[in-house]
Parts: sequence; C-alpha cells; structure tokens
Amino acid sequence: MPTLFHSPHSRSSRIISQLMLMGKLDQIDVVIVEVIKGDGSGNSDRNNAHPEGKVPFLVTDEGETIRESTAIMMYLDEVFGYPFGIQPGTAGRGSFLSWMSYYGGVLEPAMVAHFAELDNPVLNSNFRTMTEVHEQIVSGLGDRPYLVGDRLTIADIIMASAFQWAPHLAPDNAAVKAWLKRVADAQDGAGLEAFEAQSFEALKLRA
Amino acid sequence: MPTLFHSPHSRSSRIISQLMLMGKLDQIDVVIVEVIKGDGSGNSDRNNAHPEGKVPFLVTDEGETIRESTAIMMYLDEVFGYPFGIQPGTAGRGSFLSWMSYYGGVLEPAMVAHFAELDNPVLNSNFRTMTEVHEQIVSGLGDRPYLVGDRLTIADIIMASAFQWAPHLAPDNAAVKAWLKRVADAQDGAGLEAFEAQSFEALKLRA
Repeated sequence: MPTLFHSPHSRSSRIISQLMLMGKLDQIDVVIVEVIKGDGSGNSDRNNAHPEGKVPFLVTDEGETIRESTAIMMYLDEVFGYPFGIQPGTAGRGSFLSWMSYYGGVLEPAMVAHFAELDNPVLNSNFRTMTEVHEQIVSGLGDRPYLVGDRLTIADIIMASAFQWAPHLAPDNAAVKAWLKRVADAQDGAGLEAFEAQSFEALKLRA
Repeated sequence: MPTLFHSPHSRSSRIISQLMLMGKLDQIDVVIVEVIKGDGSGNSDRNNAHPEGKVPFLVTDEGETIRESTAIMMYLDEVFGYPFGIQPGTAGRGSFLSWMSYYGGVLEPAMVAHFAELDNPVLNSNFRTMTEVHEQIVSGLGDRPYLVGDRLTIADIIMASAFQWAPHLAPDNAAVKAWLKRVADAQDGAGLEAFEAQSFEALKLRA
C-alpha cells in the first residue's frame, strides 16, 4: 500500500481531497506528521520521510519516493485509472500537462514572491507576477466549466487550491469565481474537514 | 504538425535537443522567435504565440497550447511513444514524475533566487535553496548512471540543463559531475549548436 505523509491544513490536504473524490483513501497508508509552518510554528517530524520535512511525500509499493504535489496527484490518478486526469493520447492531454506544470513552475513562485512582498526584476522576468497569472487563468478558462474540457480534473483541484488558501489573491472575474465555487463544491469539504480534525487529534495524542 | 516556438540559446534549446535525440525534429514546425533575455537585451516577438512572449511554447495539431518545458517535453515524449520517458504503469514512473515536477517547482525557483541574490526566509522555506537542491540530486542519483534507472530520460535532460547553463552552480560531487558529462555526451551537442547558429542567422535575416 502506498504511504502518504500528510499534515493537516497544508499542501498535502489537496491530496487527501483527491483520494476522497476517487474513493481510494482506504487504499493509501496516510501517516500524519507535523511540519514547520510558514509562520515558523510547528516542528519538523522524525516520522516524516520527506528529505526536507515537508508534505506531501509519497512512497510507492516499489519503494519509489515522490515529492511535489503535482507529481503525487498525477501518479495517484494514473494508478487508479485516470478518474480525474486526462489519459496520454486523448484530447486535452496537452492542456492538462500544461496546467499541471504551470502550477508548480509559475503560480507557486509568483504567489510566494507576492507573499514575501518581493518585487524583484529577476523573479518577475522568470516567473512573472500574479498579474500575468490572473490573465492566464482568465484566458485559459474562457467560458468552459473546467480548465480542461467539461469535467473536473486534478488540474482544477491544484490550481484552485492556491485560491482556497488565499482567496484575496483570486482574479476579480466572474467566470473565475464561478469556477472556484464549482471546484470547491465538487470536493467533499465537510469530509475533508472531519479528516483534518481527526489528524490534528492524532498529532495531539502523540505529543 | 505541432508548432514549437523556439529561441536559440534559451530554455527551449533543450526541447530541440530532445527532438534531435528522438529523430523527430522534422516532424515539428519550429518557429524561431526573439525573446527578451534575462539581461534585458532582445525584443519580444510578434510571431511568438506564448502569451508572455517566452519560450518554449507548443501548439498541438488539435490547437491545444502547452507552456512550461516539463509539460512540453512530457507531451512530445508521449506522442512519440516514450523513447526518453517512463510510461505510466511501469517501474520508475513515480521517480520520473517526481523529478519532472521537482525541476520546475524547486530547482528553478531556488536557482533563480540564487541569481537574484535573494536570501529571503519566505522563498527559502517554500522552495529551499541550492544547498538542499544539491543534496537532493546527490542522494537521488546515488550510484546510478541516470536519475531514473539505467537509461537516459527527459528527467536527466531537464535537470542537467540547469547546470549546463550555470556550471558553477553544479554540486561539487564526483558522481554528479560524471552524470552531467554522461547526459551531455548522450546529446548531440554539435548538431544542436549547428541548429542554433542557423536559428540566429534566420533571426538576423528577418531583422
């Protein structure tokens, strides 16, 4: 059984949400760990196999280690038959890969630079800023219900997760706001919160 | 025929190298464009379909647009039957996805922050620094010839490309140096340089 290292209310929460959507949470061994948060609170956790004490981190049945949310989400989607991905060789695959890479390669660096209050010409020329990210999402979404075609994919889940975490950084655009609501509604928010509450409880009992 | 927007001696050069390795350069319509370089030289190019005037950018036969090198490399590898990738469902797929995501999500942000001479706690806690990148490459490579298993993949090409561009930022480690040489030797450096010279010439003629 693959092992997922998860910390509640963190970047790994979207993996839990994906597993719930797939109905596969019971087929993964979820290890709840502490992480050091952005504000410096929390502790690094000896139980966490991630080399830098971050989450998510996945260890496969074959012992392969996978870091980075996009890689883990694509891997899990492939293992379970592409329920929320676009299979290679089918329509939308190019757009799907593009959004998955865009999340880690542009949206996260631009958003983190924004939070760091950095307006640095080297960062801006390499990653652009939240202005271009907004334009990309508005034009990329267009009038479609989801980023790739007509159904929810993990590209929606990961792209939207950034704005679920920081709603004030979402584009001020009606179509994008409707998309964010659609993606949130498609996920089991109440189920996820119950899981997160249990996870916090497990960490407290261990302490 | 898919269209690739390419600028010589840029992030899109590794896509040209991949296409040469696959023997598929003639099956892609390569449009040579100018880009604004990191030092501010160059011009943005009206012929470039990338929304922010960057490269690489790929437009598929179906009109899908793909940005980000990792997405384009994975897409092209899939289209041509995985000659330099790891097929879903086969050994090494997890590691392969991990390295592909790591390049854009960690190595590039860490390297760009290094070049920008930023030592910012928010950037460092989110992306770590070149120190952790070195550790990840050294431990991830181990004593294997390539990052994933026994053969060259696009994970090697994209990870090594960063250090071909900035050799002084490569880990000072014998196994990593041997790997960088192995990856460089496997590619057609002379062929790529000839192609780049032609590309520069085409831009000059157009000017």
